[in-house]
Amino acid sequence: MTLRVAFLGYRFMGTAHANALARLPMFFPDAPDTHRQVLIGRDESALAEAADRLGFAETATSWREIVDDVDVFYNLAPNYLHADPAVAALENDVHVLSEKPLAHTLSDAERMAAAAADTDATAAVAFNYRFLPAVARAKTLVESGELGEIRAFRGQYLQDWLTDPTAPWSWRTDADLAGSGALGDLGAHTLDLARFLVADVARVSGHTRTFVDERPDPESDETRAVTVDDAFTAQLAFENGAMGTVEASRVAPGRKNDHRIELDGTDGALRWSLERPNELLVRRSGARGFERELVTEADDPYVDRWWPPGHVLGWEHAIVHENYEFLRAAATDESHDPDFQAGLAVQRLLDAILRADAEGRWVEC
Amino acid sequence: MTLRVAFLGYRFMGTAHANALARLPMFFPDAPDTHRQVLIGRDESALAEAADRLGFAETATSWREIVDDVDVFYNLAPNYLHADPAVAALENDVHVLSEKPLAHTLSDAERMAAAAADTDATAAVAFNYRFLPAVARAKTLVESGELGEIRAFRGQYLQDWLTDPTAPWSWRTDADLAGSGALGDLGAHTLDLARFLVADVARVSGHTRTFVDERPDPESDETRAVTVDDAFTAQLAFENGAMGTVEASRVAPGRKNDHRIELDGTDGALRWSLERPNELLVRRSGARGFERELVTEADDPYVDRWWPPGHVLGWEHAIVHENYEFLRAAATDESHDPDFQAGLAVQRLLDAILRADAEGRWVEC
Amino acid sequence: MTLRVAFLGYRFMGTAHANALARLPMFFPDAPDTHRQVLIGRDESALAEAADRLGFAETATSWREIVDDVDVFYNLAPNYLHADPAVAALENDVHVLSEKPLAHTLSDAERMAAAAADTDATAAVAFNYRFLPAVARAKTLVESGELGEIRAFRGQYLQDWLTDPTAPWSWRTDADLAGSGALGDLGAHTLDLARFLVADVARVSGHTRTFVDERPDPESDETRAVTVDDAFTAQLAFENGAMGTVEASRVAPGRKNDHRIELDGTDGALRWSLERPNELLVRRSGARGFERELVTEADDPYVDRWWPPGHVLGWEHAIVHENYEFLRAAATDESHDPDFQAGLAVQRLLDAILRADAEGRWVEC
Amino acid sequence: MTLRVAFLGYRFMGTAHANALARLPMFFPDAPDTHRQVLIGRDESALAEAADRLGFAETATSWREIVDDVDVFYNLAPNYLHADPAVAALENDVHVLSEKPLAHTLSDAERMAAAAADTDATAAVAFNYRFLPAVARAKTLVESGELGEIRAFRGQYLQDWLTDPTAPWSWRTDADLAGSGALGDLGAHTLDLARFLVADVARVSGHTRTFVDERPDPESDETRAVTVDDAFTAQLAFENGAMGTVEASRVAPGRKNDHRIELDGTDGALRWSLERPNELLVRRSGARGFERELVTEADDPYVDRWWPPGHVLGWEHAIVHENYEFLRAAATDESHDPDFQAGLAVQRLLDAILRADAEGRWVEC
Repeated sequence: MTLRVAFLGYRFMGTAHANALARLPMFFPDAPDTHRQVLIGRDESALAEAADRLGFAETATSWREIVDDVDVFYNLAPNYLHADPAVAALENDVHVLSEKPLAHTLSDAERMAAAAADTDATAAVAFNYRFLPAVARAKTLVESGELGEIRAFRGQYLQDWLTDPTAPWSWRTDADLAGSGALGDLGAHTLDLARFLVADVARVSGHTRTFVDERPDPESDETRAVTVDDAFTAQLAFENGAMGTVEASRVAPGRKNDHRIELDGTDGALRWSLERPNELLVRRSGARGFERELVTEADDPYVDRWWPPGHVLGWEHAIVHENYEFLRAAATDESHDPDFQAGLAVQRLLDAILRADAEGRWVEC
Repeated sequence: MTLRVAFLGYRFMGTAHANALARLPMFFPDAPDTHRQVLIGRDESALAEAADRLGFAETATSWREIVDDVDVFYNLAPNYLHADPAVAALENDVHVLSEKPLAHTLSDAERMAAAAADTDATAAVAFNYRFLPAVARAKTLVESGELGEIRAFRGQYLQDWLTDPTAPWSWRTDADLAGSGALGDLGAHTLDLARFLVADVARVSGHTRTFVDERPDPESDETRAVTVDDAFTAQLAFENGAMGTVEASRVAPGRKNDHRIELDGTDGALRWSLERPNELLVRRSGARGFERELVTEADDPYVDRWWPPGHVLGWEHAIVHENYEFLRAAATDESHDPDFQAGLAVQRLLDAILRADAEGRWVEC
Repeated sequence: MTLRVAFLGYRFMGTAHANALARLPMFFPDAPDTHRQVLIGRDESALAEAADRLGFAETATSWREIVDDVDVFYNLAPNYLHADPAVAALENDVHVLSEKPLAHTLSDAERMAAAAADTDATAAVAFNYRFLPAVARAKTLVESGELGEIRAFRGQYLQDWLTDPTAPWSWRTDADLAGSGALGDLGAHTLDLARFLVADVARVSGHTRTFVDERPDPESDETRAVTVDDAFTAQLAFENGAMGTVEASRVAPGRKNDHRIELDGTDGALRWSLERPNELLVRRSGARGFERELVTEADDPYVDRWWPPGHVLGWEHAIVHENYEFLRAAATDESHDPDFQAGLAVQRLLDAILRADAEGRWVEC
Repeated sequence: MTLRVAFLGYRFMGTAHANALARLPMFFPDAPDTHRQVLIGRDESALAEAADRLGFAETATSWREIVDDVDVFYNLAPNYLHADPAVAALENDVHVLSEKPLAHTLSDAERMAAAAADTDATAAVAFNYRFLPAVARAKTLVESGELGEIRAFRGQYLQDWLTDPTAPWSWRTDADLAGSGALGDLGAHTLDLARFLVADVARVSGHTRTFVDERPDPESDETRAVTVDDAFTAQLAFENGAMGTVEASRVAPGRKNDHRIELDGTDGALRWSLERPNELLVRRSGARGFERELVTEADDPYVDRWWPPGHVLGWEHAIVHENYEFLRAAATDESHDPDFQAGLAVQRLLDAILRADAEGRWVEC
């Protein structure tokens, strides 16, 4: 059986997922076959060019007419467009992969999770970093007990592309369209890894800041108000008693994609950064310091599908692995993690952090 | 004029400051002359051995009888013994250098700061990391404006010596004697650097955790309760609008003395760690990434007193520089920074973080 | 026009180049179209499986019958099989990409270079690391003059897969089949980068060592003699007066693919390692230390074809870029660098290093 | 008994050793007592100032009149002044510590070693890096067999202070006064560590280059010829079959004191750099990568004399430890390593490298 696929969105994420589909047959021949059937967007000429480049058979300008003609629906649109198409697809028992954060509001996220609960179709949220070999190995190490009980989590996701005050306004800087800024865009990833690697979060304290209040509108010579955070910080109290800090910034000069994770356990510790995605720093029990592991061995997660040891993978491989797992789940009706419930759990944290900030107090999640 | 010096305390910090005094003549010949007159402690035989090794002429078992017979009083005792001797010394117009945190309670710290305000004597608090060349250079870079306005501060002070649950109880794990745990012991340094490098702090949120509730009493076969935090996290809102996170742990496996500072400005950024104290990572305006500076050039702070470029200094040099500045201030009646007001300001933050944690809300400082 | 392609070889390098061809349409739509027509090998069942996975239309067990039925011939076979098929292809004006080193003997390499000189077809040798963005950027920085005149080159290529004395014998450990060991397998890359980034080499001194004299034969229970070097070192005197060292090892514990390059110029310096392929360390004129550049900006070589800044590429992207350049040259009859003359130049160095080692003296190249 | 000490030389090395003597009583109370009796130099006013600062009782302008009035003679003069005073001291059974390299010519070094062989006095050569805790620990690890048999040594000592062509001429750039340049100044340290950590060297190949042929004479407006190497490279064949490379440069931009050592064994590997002197990177048997050890634990060499774990030492501590060992040997007539025979062994290597370079061939040592 070949899964017929539709994408809503054809820019960065559209390319990343199309690339993933194109690479599966050579490296993951056990993945379900897919047919890139229809690419959905609004700008017809850009869409036609993209469909050609990304290997889609057709284009469409409305998701509504498509959503029951395919087997799998990728929602790669801006956050405010996540809920309706996803819900419609799930109502038609179409499998859905939604980009993160799950939605721009908690109520939309709840609606999506409810739709997911009502169908046997697979509903995945694209917390892709779980699928990097080093992160997957981190999970294995945590679960093996080798690090003991986890006591502390530190997560920081730093970028610098909004440092320049003349960087333009976009949907990503607008609360109505994105929900939040660095928090939802970057922090959602970190919060997912916190839940993935440690435990659910019981309480949060939050702090957000918008350093650049308005930005040039790319479609006029006016400026438009920035209504989301440029940076946030949060404290976490996990349900298992661990403590944590999470923060993100899009105004951190010199950091291009520095998603840093650090775990302290009773017997060991881990460190990792997305700027060096193949490296995991592991402090083993009884060791003095951290061992730098290059996570490129044949028995590391996903690595045997690719190259010999030492031939490092890139960012995009996370997307390939994510698609492999998602499509396998879709084809077999096995469960997929992270699913919409995981997306909703993170959305609750995003919402709680904003409320905690607004109210100046810790908030139960 | 030779300054007659008394030390209360003769272990780690006693050795560090005695070493500093012994090294000043050769490397800082413009420092005031000092005479290590009297070493104060309770255990007479250990005291005699220490006085001999550290170069003190006499010993005493009570600070009260000494405090007006010397020119300079170093309070290197446990936190709960900071206030009374310091206040008595200042009331006698004796210069005081007090180890950090300034006191174990806010009220003691206030009493000490009041005494300092009432005398012309110099009252210094030993936030020694300000005097490492790399940190002093960081301050210079911030003040030069080269980094622009500072928007974010991240400070983490990680050690692992209490990870082992059989590590013994000591005054450092007792709230009545120490005031707090990782917070006051380590976090006080980080909070001082936050104030030094960024601005005063307007509001904080706090979180503390004690992971090991009781520890073996070294003086019995019982255990005693641990009543301080093993680790804390805090969020900071600075008065100038910057945001920050500060945390510390004494249960972070694999970190021996990893005091990490990170600053983001509108035009640049800095990173530094105490485990590599001679290195400053600087992201300059317009650069892509961080430049690793070895802060060992002749025009770096204090460096011309020591060795040629590339011949790195150690932890202890911070103490030498600190003593140089303190003694110069004492001899000239010039002001010294950090003084007891700076110590009090940090104490207020320690206190605010504990209250914020207890009350589950942000607290004004 | 679509270029019909044949591959001789279908394991690691076969997969790497097939992947490259498969990815070009999406990311380098200006590359010539290719048709993976025939995959050549000896083991028919493995070959059929590989052809299916790698997307080849047909298979063949002899290169002789194929070599004039295609437009492009990839020679990905063991070293001793490089010359005859490549020469035959070039004699038929078929474009050739040959894996490195160009051949297992200097005379074969000379024969190949002569054949390349006699045809208008493109003859490329797969020194793929030139096509990593960081290495291509290094070349740009050198050529810009920003580093001044290059005075020193250090190149080290360290792997550990032969550290285990029970790692099996293979053609890579046999002089008749491979020509040399770490020298030709790894050092060929480093010597190519030396020539690429600095200048031609005038003289060399060499040293080779075989630490494990025999290894288990995977096809019997006997051992077979290892007749190539496990490690080599060389000194280089460049024609422009620069000096260098080059070494490689396949018995360097803990290094998986640590190809390290270091350049000193009169005004600056560079450092790079293949284990962190996206990072270039640049010491600019007047700077204190090295700036860590993440070579993922839109204006870095090839990067605009892929992802936004900070989304790092992997090892395999070098192969994609290499294929892009090779196929463009093939389609346009423009020259390609590195060509067989570059391959021959490196082969002369390999040969000179072996002679220098045997004769215990510097050898002119 | 108190050892009466004379120093010939009072600049960088004079200060470093005077500091060491001054620090021993507090941290190494079991070291012999010393009396800094006489400081020898030519410039009487500078000498008087230095004697005062460095704590010497007297000054003298000729070593000849002093050499039998003291118990210990430190020869910290330029290389060409090493032999005569050292020989005279040893002939008077005065203990000698000589700065490195042992001499500026092989014949002088042989004369010194012969004098050392004829006396019971201690004759030490100041290869101080052996006394850094991390290097001493490296030695322990090698000797424990944990790394297996050592197969490869890489040593590089890079500085940049002669990169600027207007940096002045000095005795260090003159062959008659220094013997060689980067080779004897920096390479001597690395060659000593090669012998210390691996084995004696059987054969060498050498390469030297002088990039700046003349430099401003600080005592005229003329330039003077530079007659030593700015940089050298060498290949080593050790007597135990290991292979190595050694190189040094004083024209390596961005490296201040980057003395890097790397060892590969059959079971493990080590890396170390003087710019991070407290860190040892250890790849243990069976591990994937290198563990970063902070060599500041109480059971690390010399560390228990200083500070708690994580409180790093500086460059100068090597000199303190070196003096401790030297003076203990002098006081007890126990042997000291490295002695003048070790100094001579390195001198033979320096000489062999120069000859190998001149003759274009490997030279037996």
